[in-house]
Amino acid sequence: MKRVFASIITIGDELLIGQTIDTNSAWISQRLNQMGIWVCHRLAVGDVREEILDALHYESDHSDLILITGGLGPTNDDITKKVLCEYFHCSFKEDAQTLDRVKKMFASRNIPMLESNLHQALVPDCCTVIPNDYGTAPCMWFQSDNIIYVSMPGVPHEMQGIMTDRVLPKLKESFTLPVILHRTVITMGLGESQVAERLIPFEKSLPENIKLAYLPGNGLLKLRLTVLGDVRQAIAYELEQYSSVLKETLQDIIVIEDDVSLEAWVGESAKGNRLTISTAESCTGGLIAHKITSVPGSSAYYKGTVVSYSNDIKEQVLKVPKEVLKEYGAVSEETVKAMVKGVITLLKTDLAVAVSGIMGPDGGTPDKPVGTVWIAAGSAEKITTHKYHLRYSRIRNTEMTANYALKMLVDAIRDKNKRV
Amino acid sequence: MKRVFASIITIGDELLIGQTIDTNSAWISQRLNQMGIWVCHRLAVGDVREEILDALHYESDHSDLILITGGLGPTNDDITKKVLCEYFHCSFKEDAQTLDRVKKMFASRNIPMLESNLHQALVPDCCTVIPNDYGTAPCMWFQSDNIIYVSMPGVPHEMQGIMTDRVLPKLKESFTLPVILHRTVITMGLGESQVAERLIPFEKSLPENIKLAYLPGNGLLKLRLTVLGDVRQAIAYELEQYSSVLKETLQDIIVIEDDVSLEAWVGESAKGNRLTISTAESCTGGLIAHKITSVPGSSAYYKGTVVSYSNDIKEQVLKVPKEVLKEYGAVSEETVKAMVKGVITLLKTDLAVAVSGIMGPDGGTPDKPVGTVWIAAGSAEKITTHKYHLRYSRIRNTEMTANYALKMLVDAIRDKNKRV
Repeated sequence: MKRVFASIITIGDELLIGQTIDTNSAWISQRLNQMGIWVCHRLAVGDVREEILDALHYESDHSDLILITGGLGPTNDDITKKVLCEYFHCSFKEDAQTLDRVKKMFASRNIPMLESNLHQALVPDCCTVIPNDYGTAPCMWFQSDNIIYVSMPGVPHEMQGIMTDRVLPKLKESFTLPVILHRTVITMGLGESQVAERLIPFEKSLPENIKLAYLPGNGLLKLRLTVLGDVRQAIAYELEQYSSVLKETLQDIIVIEDDVSLEAWVGESAKGNRLTISTAESCTGGLIAHKITSVPGSSAYYKGTVVSYSNDIKEQVLKVPKEVLKEYGAVSEETVKAMVKGVITLLKTDLAVAVSGIMGPDGGTPDKPVGTVWIAAGSAEKITTHKYHLRYSRIRNTEMTANYALKMLVDAIRDKNKRV
Repeated sequence: MKRVFASIITIGDELLIGQTIDTNSAWISQRLNQMGIWVCHRLAVGDVREEILDALHYESDHSDLILITGGLGPTNDDITKKVLCEYFHCSFKEDAQTLDRVKKMFASRNIPMLESNLHQALVPDCCTVIPNDYGTAPCMWFQSDNIIYVSMPGVPHEMQGIMTDRVLPKLKESFTLPVILHRTVITMGLGESQVAERLIPFEKSLPENIKLAYLPGNGLLKLRLTVLGDVRQAIAYELEQYSSVLKETLQDIIVIEDDVSLEAWVGESAKGNRLTISTAESCTGGLIAHKITSVPGSSAYYKGTVVSYSNDIKEQVLKVPKEVLKEYGAVSEETVKAMVKGVITLLKTDLAVAVSGIMGPDGGTPDKPVGTVWIAAGSAEKITTHKYHLRYSRIRNTEMTANYALKMLVDAIRDKNKRV
């Protein structure tokens, strides 16, 4: 089977001056990859006519599908549409449906419509317009020399909406695609090179159509097996075989046998075992709570957090005894244990996790250097603690601490479940 | 003056399957842009020999400087070094300094060293090695046909460390760079197209060497003026002139007259006025606290948050009267006001902000649809409230709510300061 290759061109000076992080490309790549289209290139260029033309020519040599985002706004610096018209040697026409949609959108939001918004209904006459139900700029579909080009707005929620509702289904019809399947396991506790060393024989055993990817991130290491083929049943069986070997080899360090985030896993485990949880955070300043509550439906098992950024609050709200804080300090095993007990009592939950540490860049002392973190997790009856020494930036230390805390929460849920 | 153009090539399948979001490119672009180097291209390719060679050739036609990240790890799929060797027609040599550094690094971390780690000391013999104090892979500097190529590891904290300590200073010496100055204002309350309409005369008045960029993000709109020239004093004066016109034109919607985050601005304002703050969050689930505590030194003015994800906690911890919750509901003006008062009493702070809302996708009712958010901010004496109707995804609604809350906190600090 011929593989289908895709390129993503993102247009906008804001990407090149670094003010905006390109999250669109990752989102698009994931979706295409899932349906068996291989993204071979991602190219970002500025709002410059020559650069855009050059990018279109370059990518048309590499790919069967070119997805273009950005540069469709109503402001002067947005020139994508004009350049596409030039590239395809066509003229502008007014798209009645888009004009109608834009007018209705402004009316319903009660915002005055500007001349520049009306211009959004002008499109190259060689394209098929794909309605944008999420904003004013239309999405445009071109076909030329056996290559499909799709131009979409760069605003992430608009692009994601159009892709999901319209573009992905249309692409599925347009190409004969292979079946592609993934299996992910998440590990913690060993570095990338140590895991790779252990997996040398396994990697050597993999056939051509199965790939293993290493995806490290803030204390976690994701391992992803991808298999490609023509017959779903056959490759599903093949994937199953190899993924059981992988799991057996990494048994001691696997945290989750699925491609879900730690916070989603906490949610599933808590819900499945009908347990409620709460958190008490010092150095992570709310990040653990933010992660847990980013999962829709988390209010069913998550009660809340107390971020005790000052010692007063550890004492007065979480009831950490004054003597504990005095004798052992805020960053200590005794304090995080008392924080777990305190927040369980305060928020009336089955389980809790508590963290206290020094994230840097300042605040370290000789016996508690920057990067020292204590985490405690458990129930009123049984609390497990762990000390970490992190060596990175404030942001990275905080992200890692949150992940370690979620992992300890997962363990506490499993343990509670076993004992009940 | 000749402008210096740069390209960024990021190498790694993880970018093309969308598992990793490319934050490196934005970081690098910002740093280069600040020193007067214009990034014209960002290209991501997979760990594939032909693709990498092709990318190097393509970008060498466009740029004076090519920064390459990724593909330097110890695992088999990392082939950047080999391909660079081929591209520059040279051989491998062992770099004694790197070997020594890698050995010491493993010894100090007490981790067993693997064969694959020793290979990291092998480098193309035509490069200058730039030591990596943050990891095992060395950074490599090549010069060929008047183009500088720098290959760096893709791990963000390693790349950022090496760039800051070694690469940026070396680039400054290698090029004659123009002076580049930026001025940013942050606005809230009007959409991009409305602001653009108002700024049509202003944009027309801008000379060739001054550019205006629109950078929207979660309820905020950043406007950035960039001026380029040879003499710092002259362009600083020019920038000053245009930025005062810009500020005057947007007076009513400017939140911050500087390129700082809202949370950093909250910090500066609180510290400057010696005020302490706390937060009470429902629907934002800790995101406001996380943003505030991401600012180093925030423990000086920030006491903590209570995330009351359940009504019990609003009642028992934040002392929101049972009758208020019963009569008006959790998402109401009365509840957020009571939350502000409650958290100020509990955490003993001068000011607080509280939010309660329905972020979606579920949980809406006919009179309180998804996206309804109430925010209250102020002191025990004076509280201001605001109701918002958001129309986006759960994540985006949460981000926007956090930004609106921080904005209201800034206003509360200003107001408190005026009244004292």
